[in-house]
Amino acid sequence: MINKLIENIKKTNAPIVVGLDPMLNYIPQHIQKKAFSELGETLEGAAEAIWQYNKGIVDAISDLIPAVKPQIAMYEQFGIPGLMAYKNTIDYCKEKGLVVIGDIKRGDIGSTSAAYAVGHLGKVQVGSNRIAGFDEDFATINPYMGSDSVNPFIDVCKEENKGLFVLVKTSNPSSGEFQDRIIDGRPLYEWVGEKVAQWGESHMGNEYSYVGAVVGATYPEMGKTLRKIMPKTFILVPGYGAQGGKGADLVHFFNEDGLGAIVNSSRGIIAAYKQEKYASFGELNYADASRQAVKDMIEDISTALNNR
Amino acid sequence: MINKLIENIKKTNAPIVVGLDPMLNYIPQHIQKKAFSELGETLEGAAEAIWQYNKGIVDAISDLIPAVKPQIAMYEQFGIPGLMAYKNTIDYCKEKGLVVIGDIKRGDIGSTSAAYAVGHLGKVQVGSNRIAGFDEDFATINPYMGSDSVNPFIDVCKEENKGLFVLVKTSNPSSGEFQDRIIDGRPLYEWVGEKVAQWGESHMGNEYSYVGAVVGATYPEMGKTLRKIMPKTFILVPGYGAQGGKGADLVHFFNEDGLGAIVNSSRGIIAAYKQEKYASFGELNYADASRQAVKDMIEDISTALNNR
Repeated sequence: MINKLIENIKKTNAPIVVGLDPMLNYIPQHIQKKAFSELGETLEGAAEAIWQYNKGIVDAISDLIPAVKPQIAMYEQFGIPGLMAYKNTIDYCKEKGLVVIGDIKRGDIGSTSAAYAVGHLGKVQVGSNRIAGFDEDFATINPYMGSDSVNPFIDVCKEENKGLFVLVKTSNPSSGEFQDRIIDGRPLYEWVGEKVAQWGESHMGNEYSYVGAVVGATYPEMGKTLRKIMPKTFILVPGYGAQGGKGADLVHFFNEDGLGAIVNSSRGIIAAYKQEKYASFGELNYADASRQAVKDMIEDISTALNNR
Repeated sequence: MINKLIENIKKTNAPIVVGLDPMLNYIPQHIQKKAFSELGETLEGAAEAIWQYNKGIVDAISDLIPAVKPQIAMYEQFGIPGLMAYKNTIDYCKEKGLVVIGDIKRGDIGSTSAAYAVGHLGKVQVGSNRIAGFDEDFATINPYMGSDSVNPFIDVCKEENKGLFVLVKTSNPSSGEFQDRIIDGRPLYEWVGEKVAQWGESHMGNEYSYVGAVVGATYPEMGKTLRKIMPKTFILVPGYGAQGGKGADLVHFFNEDGLGAIVNSSRGIIAAYKQEKYASFGELNYADASRQAVKDMIEDISTALNNR
């Protein structure tokens, strides 16, 4: 799957991923009204609105991008119906040829991590059948519990040719509270990065490992160090756009081959029509605004990479 | 909710919680057969088997215990139908007067943590309605991303009188890989414990905080230290029984008032009938075996607490 991700990036010339993280207040009124008139102001109604909204965006941008990253929390907040919209979104994006990164940030003791891995990336045994639950291509995971919480994910990835992105240095303001603390002269995130590189050696694709890392665009200097510590690790970079990261901050996350990183934008793309810059598209044409925002993001990153 | 948990513990005289973490191979053949004959060897069939199995156990033990802790991964592995069984289990246990601790170990950047908090502990706004998604009483969360990933959970807990257990020192063998690393002379888990105590001050119940901690039974000496660092923090203690923790290891997790900790057992209770000790109950009477295992666990912990 890391090979397919890289192939998609080369084909689109766009090392970006669009975060499908819908909030109800992003969704245009005409979509909300239709869903609520059919299903009421219920979890089902909200889930239907999200799904229609996502579908509109994916139809408008799928030819421009290699991958999407639905954030499961934004669906989970609407309970079971929300999770059904998450699953529909995954299936639809895969049909369109997109790589799907499930942003689930799971992680637990061994047998429990194995259950998450099976449910999201693998197949669960039921009697004589093996059945996929959510079936994302990649999943994000949390390393706080150490190797025996990560290895069950790697095992399933090996079976299924799927991949991971392990949290190393997250994009949020207080990520440093624990991640930046100094251990034997180096911050915790570097020790985690080193482990990610080791874990990755056990499951290599052609050029990069199936085991990637998450490093926030908001910390470009740390990205530079981590790039060196993890040369064969693909880095998923959140925090571009709405969280403050800019194209120029991103160059150090990439290797000389122009690969090695994929930059995420969520709000900046899916709710583009709410920005002054794209307001002329109007709410009805929200998906066209998203398409333009994708083009502008690709241009911003290409320019930064060409100027380095 | 921390007050209700303590009230339930005093009423049952049992500082324990039963982990409802079903694996298909724990479930007696007669339950699996019935579910599969109705719904096939499908995710729906597996979910039905899990739900019937849980219901049998809860009916047999609910008068003896204060709380249950369903591990969402064990349901999530069966996709949407599995999560419906998770939700049914929560609702049923709450009807029985049990406190429900959702073992979800979520955590993300601010707005995303807020979505998880709303979905699991609060209510989501849909038009003019506020609707609960999963509606557990407590949730476990992961602190790797720092305060701004934890605070949105605390905010929802304040609104809803609900609570948290934050991972501090987990029960698994490789938990020390990062958690035990020394920072300014003290292990990371102590720094996290100190933060948990601080977070807890902002949301106090009568005797203890609504913000609890997870510390594994498998590390009793560390439990002793953490008990002192977090005097007003309730500690959820996994790792008893199947993972190797014994009653005598647990005394240091409790305060002098006999409170301050709640010990989890999962497999040791719900799959008791598979142990030699309880084999005489037979597979058909699996729930009676679980009831006896609960009584034995309460006895083991009471004896240890009385002998300290």
